[in-house]
Amino acid sequence: MPIESAQSFRASSAMLRLKFFTTGGTIDKVYFDAKSEFEVGSPQVLEVIREANVAFEYDIESILRKDSLDMTDADRALVRERVTAEPCSLIVITHGTDMMVQTGRALAGIPRKTIVLTGSMQPARFRVTDAGFNIGAAIGAVQSLEHGVYIVMNGRVFDPQRTRKNIEKNCFEEEV
Amino acid sequence: MPIESAQSFRASSAMLRLKFFTTGGTIDKVYFDAKSEFEVGSPQVLEVIREANVAFEYDIESILRKDSLDMTDADRALVRERVTAEPCSLIVITHGTDMMVQTGRALAGIPRKTIVLTGSMQPARFRVTDAGFNIGAAIGAVQSLEHGVYIVMNGRVFDPQRTRKNIEKNCFEEEV
Amino acid sequence: MPIESAQSFRASSAMLRLKFFTTGGTIDKVYFDAKSEFEVGSPQVLEVIREANVAFEYDIESILRKDSLDMTDADRALVRERVTAEPCSLIVITHGTDMMVQTGRALAGIPRKTIVLTGSMQPARFRVTDAGFNIGAAIGAVQSLEHGVYIVMNGRVFDPQRTRKNIEKNCFEEEV
Amino acid sequence: MPIESAQSFRASSAMLRLKFFTTGGTIDKVYFDAKSEFEVGSPQVLEVIREANVAFEYDIESILRKDSLDMTDADRALVRERVTAEPCSLIVITHGTDMMVQTGRALAGIPRKTIVLTGSMQPARFRVTDAGFNIGAAIGAVQSLEHGVYIVMNGRVFDPQRTRKNIEKNCFEEEV
Repeated sequence: MPIESAQSFRASSAMLRLKFFTTGGTIDKVYFDAKSEFEVGSPQVLEVIREANVAFEYDIESILRKDSLDMTDADRALVRERVTAEPCSLIVITHGTDMMVQTGRALAGIPRKTIVLTGSMQPARFRVTDAGFNIGAAIGAVQSLEHGVYIVMNGRVFDPQRTRKNIEKNCFEEEV
Repeated sequence: MPIESAQSFRASSAMLRLKFFTTGGTIDKVYFDAKSEFEVGSPQVLEVIREANVAFEYDIESILRKDSLDMTDADRALVRERVTAEPCSLIVITHGTDMMVQTGRALAGIPRKTIVLTGSMQPARFRVTDAGFNIGAAIGAVQSLEHGVYIVMNGRVFDPQRTRKNIEKNCFEEEV
Repeated sequence: MPIESAQSFRASSAMLRLKFFTTGGTIDKVYFDAKSEFEVGSPQVLEVIREANVAFEYDIESILRKDSLDMTDADRALVRERVTAEPCSLIVITHGTDMMVQTGRALAGIPRKTIVLTGSMQPARFRVTDAGFNIGAAIGAVQSLEHGVYIVMNGRVFDPQRTRKNIEKNCFEEEV
Repeated sequence: MPIESAQSFRASSAMLRLKFFTTGGTIDKVYFDAKSEFEVGSPQVLEVIREANVAFEYDIESILRKDSLDMTDADRALVRERVTAEPCSLIVITHGTDMMVQTGRALAGIPRKTIVLTGSMQPARFRVTDAGFNIGAAIGAVQSLEHGVYIVMNGRVFDPQRTRKNIEKNCFEEEV
């Protein structure tokens, strides 16, 4: 069996290490009262994992701070480049939900890595938000799945090749 | 290969279904001002998964409402009985953190199920809490892991046979 | 002494009654993920006073749903008209902070009413927000002050005739 | 008219200064997971006024950390002593709600001060809490009322001599 498939449950004695890349999206939107503007701010995943008192080592790297609707093919190529060059094999990417499937598809075929994309419908700064839950789900999944690329949203693991965002239901779903 | 090991990533066309059992613990503690008392209340996992707008079917069943320090062998046997009888193969159990390892060990060997225990150090009702993140991590893990029993706390998947709660660090860790 | 000045502390045996008018502003901004837009939504003061379990009767009326920077003289005249016509003598107005002073000045001279304007720098929907505190401060002040028009922001009571918003400090202050 | 009664609305050119005394109560209850205990912790009023970005100078002094049901006559005498000795004339006291009326009555007759007692039914650390709103209401009231002692709870100003806590309704009310 190919080396890259033996990735389920690793209760290893080595310290668990995850790499986070952030690209922007609703999850990182903050309110700037002085500008009466609501914009992508600093990566919220850091706050979330600090409050969660996580038992793994991690590194967070911001690649972009964009609404995913504003992402270009060049942006997706940049994300692919950074992910490919990353030594760590367990990767979580926070991303806007509108174009998350597109970036997921652009990451197909990167060998020997488990890559999970997630984001949120409500900013992490809100009192009622799916951000913490979604980042948690992505983290639980990334250390449990076999190598490959996945979207984890709405508490479910999806294959980007067969997934879409259903805007009316505010939900991801499998394409039939 | 044994039937029960083929459980990694199921991007099935069938609807995903999870079963939640709740036993109490800090995650469900609420404040009763009239009594000046802080007690285990109704299961908070329901609130968490509603806010998360989950894309799976689920059923939540309350087995106990206890501080895990108050759980007895009879309680653990009851949990094992309910889990074994449950038709659904993906199970998340919310539980007090103090005795989570003990219950995890009491569930060893139940065939053809992926069972994840989680809880939280701060009640789900608090403004700053690990509850949503932990439930998310448990949900991401349970649909990704092979059959067996696991603890998912502090953003990490643990084997109950080789895990303990480190009280000073407020964290779960592998026993060396 | 004129009738309208005898308004301090009314521990009356009659039920306390307050009227709330809402005009929009940051306090009511909500996030519409489908539109990737952050707009003035439904009045948040209702949520705040429900959670506060208030011991007074109240009525909430939405006059506008605008960013205060978009308010016109016609809008301010409408607010004055509604306030003047209102039978209740204790009035709280939630309002955008940018032009709160202007509306305060436009309400000068309305007889036999205590009118307090407030709002917030962070939307009421955020996890960290000044909304609940500010609405509370406005409510505590409106039943304690003599008749007249006031701004209550940053935990302080201001006279709109001698107040400005300091944008750098994100704070209201007296004009010297 | 006595000097001490001319205390309504002070839009003074001098900086506004408030003194906070804390005595414990539900408002300051925090959860200690290591002890599975929910106890009075450090004063929460500091967090509340920091997040509110208040425009006044303040000093916070902890007198006690007790459930008000555990307060004795000696405790109330200590509170009266500290309040009397305090140079600042605007005082807010955070206190357990069960015995707030008793302490209010024990502070009767202290000259030349406006003293407001408040607290909350749900701890300040909870996601849904009346703490911020109540502290705001107390702050709005203390700078607006004439000298004397008051309870500000449930968004209303009460005279401690004629008030009680209605436990069923979780609410303060005037005694008829």
